[in-house]
Amino acid sequence: GDKTEPSAAEERRVYVFKKGSSAGRKEMKALLGGKGANLCEMAHLGLNVPPGFTITTKVCQAFYEAGGKLPAGVWEDVLAAVKEVEEAYGAKFADPADPLLFSVRSGAAVSMPGMMDTVLNLGLNDEVVEGLAKKRGERFAFDCYRRLLDMFGDVVLGIEHEKFEEHIHAVKEENGLKLDVELTGPHLREVVRRFKGVYEKEGKSLPHDPYEQMRLAVSAVFGSWNTTRAVKYREINRIRGLLGTAVNVQSMVYGNLNDNSGTGVCFTRNPATGEKKLYGEYLQNAQGEDVVAGIRTPKDVSHMAENFAQAYEDLVYNTTLLEKHMRDMQDCEFTVQDGVLFMLQTRNGKRTGPAALQVAVDMESEGMVSKSEAVLMVEPRHLDQLLHPMFEGTGKAEYKSAVLGKGLPASPGAAVGRIVFTADEAEKWHAEGEKVILLRVETSPEDVGGMHAAEGILTARGGMTSHAAVVARGWGKPCVCGLDVLEVDYTAKTATLKGSVLREGDWLSLNGSTGEVLQGKQPVKAPELSGKLAVFMEWVDSFRKIGVYTNADTPADAAIARKNGAQGIGLVRTEHMFFATAERIAAVRRMIAAEELMEESTGAAAEALAALKEFQREDFEGIFTAMDGLPVTIRLLDPPLHEFLPHEGTAELDALCDTLAKEMSGRSGQHMSAAKAILEAAVNVSKKGVKPFPHIMVPLVGFEEELSHQIKVIRKAAEDVFKAAGSSVEYKVGTMIEVPRGALRAGDLANHAEFFSFGTNDLTQMTCGFSRDDAEAKFLPLYVREGILPADPFEELDTSGVGELIKIAVQRGRETRPGLHLGICGEHGGDPKSIEFVSTLVDYVSCSPLRVPIARLAAAQAAI
Amino acid sequence: GDKTEPSAAEERRVYVFKKGSSAGRKEMKALLGGKGANLCEMAHLGLNVPPGFTITTKVCQAFYEAGGKLPAGVWEDVLAAVKEVEEAYGAKFADPADPLLFSVRSGAAVSMPGMMDTVLNLGLNDEVVEGLAKKRGERFAFDCYRRLLDMFGDVVLGIEHEKFEEHIHAVKEENGLKLDVELTGPHLREVVRRFKGVYEKEGKSLPHDPYEQMRLAVSAVFGSWNTTRAVKYREINRIRGLLGTAVNVQSMVYGNLNDNSGTGVCFTRNPATGEKKLYGEYLQNAQGEDVVAGIRTPKDVSHMAENFAQAYEDLVYNTTLLEKHMRDMQDCEFTVQDGVLFMLQTRNGKRTGPAALQVAVDMESEGMVSKSEAVLMVEPRHLDQLLHPMFEGTGKAEYKSAVLGKGLPASPGAAVGRIVFTADEAEKWHAEGEKVILLRVETSPEDVGGMHAAEGILTARGGMTSHAAVVARGWGKPCVCGLDVLEVDYTAKTATLKGSVLREGDWLSLNGSTGEVLQGKQPVKAPELSGKLAVFMEWVDSFRKIGVYTNADTPADAAIARKNGAQGIGLVRTEHMFFATAERIAAVRRMIAAEELMEESTGAAAEALAALKEFQREDFEGIFTAMDGLPVTIRLLDPPLHEFLPHEGTAELDALCDTLAKEMSGRSGQHMSAAKAILEAAVNVSKKGVKPFPHIMVPLVGFEEELSHQIKVIRKAAEDVFKAAGSSVEYKVGTMIEVPRGALRAGDLANHAEFFSFGTNDLTQMTCGFSRDDAEAKFLPLYVREGILPADPFEELDTSGVGELIKIAVQRGRETRPGLHLGICGEHGGDPKSIEFVSTLVDYVSCSPLRVPIARLAAAQAAI
Ligand SMILES: [Mg+2]
Ligand SMILES: [Mg+2]
Repeated sequence: GDKTEPSAAEERRVYVFKKGSSAGRKEMKALLGGKGANLCEMAHLGLNVPPGFTITTKVCQAFYEAGGKLPAGVWEDVLAAVKEVEEAYGAKFADPADPLLFSVRSGAAVSMPGMMDTVLNLGLNDEVVEGLAKKRGERFAFDCYRRLLDMFGDVVLGIEHEKFEEHIHAVKEENGLKLDVELTGPHLREVVRRFKGVYEKEGKSLPHDPYEQMRLAVSAVFGSWNTTRAVKYREINRIRGLLGTAVNVQSMVYGNLNDNSGTGVCFTRNPATGEKKLYGEYLQNAQGEDVVAGIRTPKDVSHMAENFAQAYEDLVYNTTLLEKHMRDMQDCEFTVQDGVLFMLQTRNGKRTGPAALQVAVDMESEGMVSKSEAVLMVEPRHLDQLLHPMFEGTGKAEYKSAVLGKGLPASPGAAVGRIVFTADEAEKWHAEGEKVILLRVETSPEDVGGMHAAEGILTARGGMTSHAAVVARGWGKPCVCGLDVLEVDYTAKTATLKGSVLREGDWLSLNGSTGEVLQGKQPVKAPELSGKLAVFMEWVDSFRKIGVYTNADTPADAAIARKNGAQGIGLVRTEHMFFATAERIAAVRRMIAAEELMEESTGAAAEALAALKEFQREDFEGIFTAMDGLPVTIRLLDPPLHEFLPHEGTAELDALCDTLAKEMSGRSGQHMSAAKAILEAAVNVSKKGVKPFPHIMVPLVGFEEELSHQIKVIRKAAEDVFKAAGSSVEYKVGTMIEVPRGALRAGDLANHAEFFSFGTNDLTQMTCGFSRDDAEAKFLPLYVREGILPADPFEELDTSGVGELIKIAVQRGRETRPGLHLGICGEHGGDPKSIEFVSTLVDYVSCSPLRVPIARLAAAQAAI
Repeated sequence: GDKTEPSAAEERRVYVFKKGSSAGRKEMKALLGGKGANLCEMAHLGLNVPPGFTITTKVCQAFYEAGGKLPAGVWEDVLAAVKEVEEAYGAKFADPADPLLFSVRSGAAVSMPGMMDTVLNLGLNDEVVEGLAKKRGERFAFDCYRRLLDMFGDVVLGIEHEKFEEHIHAVKEENGLKLDVELTGPHLREVVRRFKGVYEKEGKSLPHDPYEQMRLAVSAVFGSWNTTRAVKYREINRIRGLLGTAVNVQSMVYGNLNDNSGTGVCFTRNPATGEKKLYGEYLQNAQGEDVVAGIRTPKDVSHMAENFAQAYEDLVYNTTLLEKHMRDMQDCEFTVQDGVLFMLQTRNGKRTGPAALQVAVDMESEGMVSKSEAVLMVEPRHLDQLLHPMFEGTGKAEYKSAVLGKGLPASPGAAVGRIVFTADEAEKWHAEGEKVILLRVETSPEDVGGMHAAEGILTARGGMTSHAAVVARGWGKPCVCGLDVLEVDYTAKTATLKGSVLREGDWLSLNGSTGEVLQGKQPVKAPELSGKLAVFMEWVDSFRKIGVYTNADTPADAAIARKNGAQGIGLVRTEHMFFATAERIAAVRRMIAAEELMEESTGAAAEALAALKEFQREDFEGIFTAMDGLPVTIRLLDPPLHEFLPHEGTAELDALCDTLAKEMSGRSGQHMSAAKAILEAAVNVSKKGVKPFPHIMVPLVGFEEELSHQIKVIRKAAEDVFKAAGSSVEYKVGTMIEVPRGALRAGDLANHAEFFSFGTNDLTQMTCGFSRDDAEAKFLPLYVREGILPADPFEELDTSGVGELIKIAVQRGRETRPGLHLGICGEHGGDPKSIEFVSTLVDYVSCSPLRVPIARLAAAQAAI
């Protein structure tokens, strides 16, 4: 109906939203940011949104391209949008008679809580504030004005917030007041006077022209996209490929107008547990920033009907509608102004692992989402949390007696570490290999580095939506908040909790699921795949197109992996078997000590070697039995090339491999003895009714003849074993692709190999030209931080380098042998992004036993 | 005219040759072998060739595919060919009345002297020998028969030659005879009787049926293709890709018929010097094997007219014709039977480096070959010989007094080493890093491994065409032959030479150009590019399409390289500069010792570092001056990645690089200081009128941002230097492609790099997945010997692995930047086969200063 509204298909620089109308939609997050797109969507749905407009992320990009200036034409669009908002709101921007004020907020396509800047109450000046005071009272008007002066000074002009804060303290003190709410109109008029003094002292000023205020604030928000803390947040969270932030300019509504006003946040379901019940907090007579900052302790949203009956009813209606429309749990911000509910924001709610699972399963059974949508609602890191250790025996006396206190269960899970009191220390200790608990009165955006480095976070102040809580839940890191009996002394590096003194370096345990804080190192246990998780994993497997195997070196690991759904073993590292028990290590030491090995295989060395081989065959029997009916891929040692391997273990392991290599390459043929141990074990268990499927894998192959030579040896070993046993088993022979040349010549290797397994750890080392240990210790973190590398290539597969070699190898290998069986057995086999990349290339991924469910989920999501 | 002769175009299994007619041609070497193709060619030219036929190499391949049996149909072709030869010869195979006998010889496409097997006089048995005795006399007939029994026993039935030899000795001894020629008919009849006894004792027999003899002999020659010694010879000489050997079955002519008969070999020019004069040796009343084996000392071919006037005239005519027709120096074998000359073989003659140069230059000036053909006649290894060291002051008293004796100058050059007496010892000592001289009475095909390992070869017996001489000349290895005053005692491991006792391990010097044997380690000197060599190199450069640069770390090296024709420097390794003098090493030590470097750059460390940088700038100035007007590519240190580098130098170098890396990455930016030293030096010399062209190269780059970051630093350094100096120079910035990822992402890197230089040493290490040191010490020689690798990939570029990465990088780099300057700076830049591979891909190769002329030749040959 509105003549100024263009068609939704036409892309603009500025999108207006007002109740019942907007050209923006929730699908336009890349252009409008998450907040802007959803504001437009809510307006379009007819919800009561304070009218406003969104300046697009493309304008942000153009802003940087123009060297930090608003690109030509944007300002004209803004002026037109202000006009439209004025009409919808029924007041004029900065009209002293009845002033419309604006907020200016950032909003990128991906949520970055607390990372970016906001200015409220734009449009006030010495003249307008008096008009506002006439209409709304002096107290309200000057409260708004002092907030504007503070925020504008901080965000736009770079005057530190603390410089304003101290004057509020001073005025309160001079007047014998404790709380901000006790400040009267004249007090706040005085505060404003002093704030202007701060400006003067800094040689700065708030522009009198409201439009000039807006222009500067919009530019400052665009500029906040590239502050150090914003860049660091994006790095840690691997947020990449965004154009920039959008800017949301929205008419102000006031939760701090009077006691019939307030502000709050709510989730449509409990973000910690997933329980289906409106969940949230609000503050009466307050602005939104007061809730998020965690400075005052808010009330539970269930009490809201007592203060705001109609607004609460509207909130329940709106949030129910939004959840259905968005098809996901929503996290909403709202303000009540004089009893009227305004929706300020909605977004899909961050949630813990348990909540993600519960919400997905519930919404599917409520008919709100399909099974495939439910599978997409649980992120791999959610599953990671569900599979994280929990405390043992939480019902027992030992546990209970260790509890020192109980705060808010802000982010579930068990965390055990040593106490540090600053984010910097947390990062430093973590870098030195220490597990730490970050203990703070409260956290701020500057602390994210240390929070990320910590096992868990404990704060004395702040609720379930405080900075610490929101950030920790996002990462799935255990967090206990608002433990207000905790007294922290940063200078002494101590904290007192009901008489117990906690010092830097002391061990502490946090139960983020209950809010309990426990002394010392409490024991933890692994979780189980049962109940709704088991149901969910069935859905997952129904979508998955590639197999998930596991890397396991012992029967015990194999059993855990199988319980977690592993469909085979992708990698048994034979050399690791020698370090499984003290008994074996002793045998290894005996053998290494026995130098006569190089002569004849008699005496101590031969005895020790025989003992080791016996252990090895027992292990293979155990592994075949644990994986009854499933393939077991066993990597042989590669003697002549071993020295180039990265140092996977101890010096002892190296020495052992050397010794074995000499023994093996000498008389009995390189892989003869290992292949025999494997196949004897297979024959033995098959006689007991177990179905073994040994896949024997030759590592570190770069040349066709190298592989054909070694496969000949293995086939001869098989012939010998089967002849001696009078029975045989099915087996396959293949190779690990971990040398760049092996990938390039995969077409040749497939003449001999029945399967390939990509050893992406070594392949990454050789392709990128650095050793993992060196790189991670010396320059990879720096390179990732500076954007030289997009990510640590040992964590997330380097798709454009190593990935191209994998593609080449897959294509050439399958050209030679169409039925070639293909898998990934590096650590990337458990990384969701890497799984997504390889999911169209290989038949299976293989990962550590505990990551098998995560790999199953990632594979399913890649297939949907 | 002959009705059985098919057209030359039709491919057959058996090719008949007879004077004036053959379907075979010299171009068919792959099919007929070198000997067979040239026999056919000589027949076709009308030369007097004993008629015969060649069974093709394809039959050999089919023989192995059939499991070591003659393929179906071949025998029928052989029988038809025998018929045709009988007609041409005018006698019947094994007809007792007038027997035609056959020789059976191997002959592959590439000459393998002495490596393969031969059987003579096929067709004799107890009946036929009597017929032959009637026609040619008892002595002749039984001499032939005993040779057949010996060779057939040895080659076909595996009875050791020594078992026959001892009976000849016995018969001579019993009859008081010294020489074989003294044996009479009855003596030889007795020898034959005893030889048959040897057969009987071994449970074997010579087939009575002559055709059965032929069938077995042909099969045995095919079988000889894969004996250990033949395989080893092909490995050492990198002879690959052949189907097998051809078999030449040829009617016998007899140099041992009477004193009007004889046999010999000759070269159309002197193979040691290239002098244009028929050069060779012959023996009267002897078979060919007697000459080659070096058992009797032959006469110079210049005396031949005295014994065989017409035959000598024919020989001169034939060899002159052949040289013109073949357009190259020929190496011929011939037999005179009853005064009639028969040509048995012709081939392009092996020659020394000096001879190759002389022949090429002479034949061009004689109008026999074009300049491009002349360039192709000199192999890179010939040039290598010409550039090899020679003895210093050969005219001086010190030299003359060291001469112990003088043998035949069988293969020129200076060799200095320690004496060993067996081929096995030579290989063993060589593997331990010793330089050895192999001293033997004579050499045999079994000795090739040790001959190859030796610096030079000295034999007591044998002429210029003995086994030792031919093999050594082929390899360009110094050899002195026929030093008959040398008495060798293998048991005592000593040799006596005119009273001097030579013991195992004693140092000895051989002058292969003069035949002189000298005591101790004689001093050697480098040769010069002058005279006809300079002329030849001008021809070379006129054909060459890519540049030849050099790898040089000092002004002195740069000067040598420029004298050798280098057109620029492809690689200056800055870190090597620090180890050029004792003074610098001392500064390095001071700096490493000064631990305070990590704090502030004051005190000892800074002083030492400043001194080092001063040295470095002086070096750069020297190098720019030496290369005035030519590009100088300087590789920077790469601090964070250095630890992955192979250990190129000492532990000290590593420590230095670490220290520099810390210093550089700390405050002043990674490459800032090195880039400044380079550009300051460039500005300094340009002020003196020198034209410097610095190309600054960033090593070990795998990621685009890594390179762009470092190039920014270099450009900033340049800006600073030029500003401070008030003048500037042209410079380029590029990168080394030595990490597989760098090759794959070359398209990205070319966004920033103005040139690429392929660091094929590291690229080979990372692509193949092994470190060079480890691999060459532990398994590469084994892998090459067993055919797992076609060649050592650090010597000859691995074209199908590393080579593919180079192709990818060239293509992607040029796509991004069409003018991208491309070179190779690994050791492969001096290897002819590698140069051939890269010659269509890059703009230049860069190699060590001494290999520059070889690289120029290889590049020219690749372009022709
Ligand atoms: Mg590996
Ligand atoms: Mg390198």
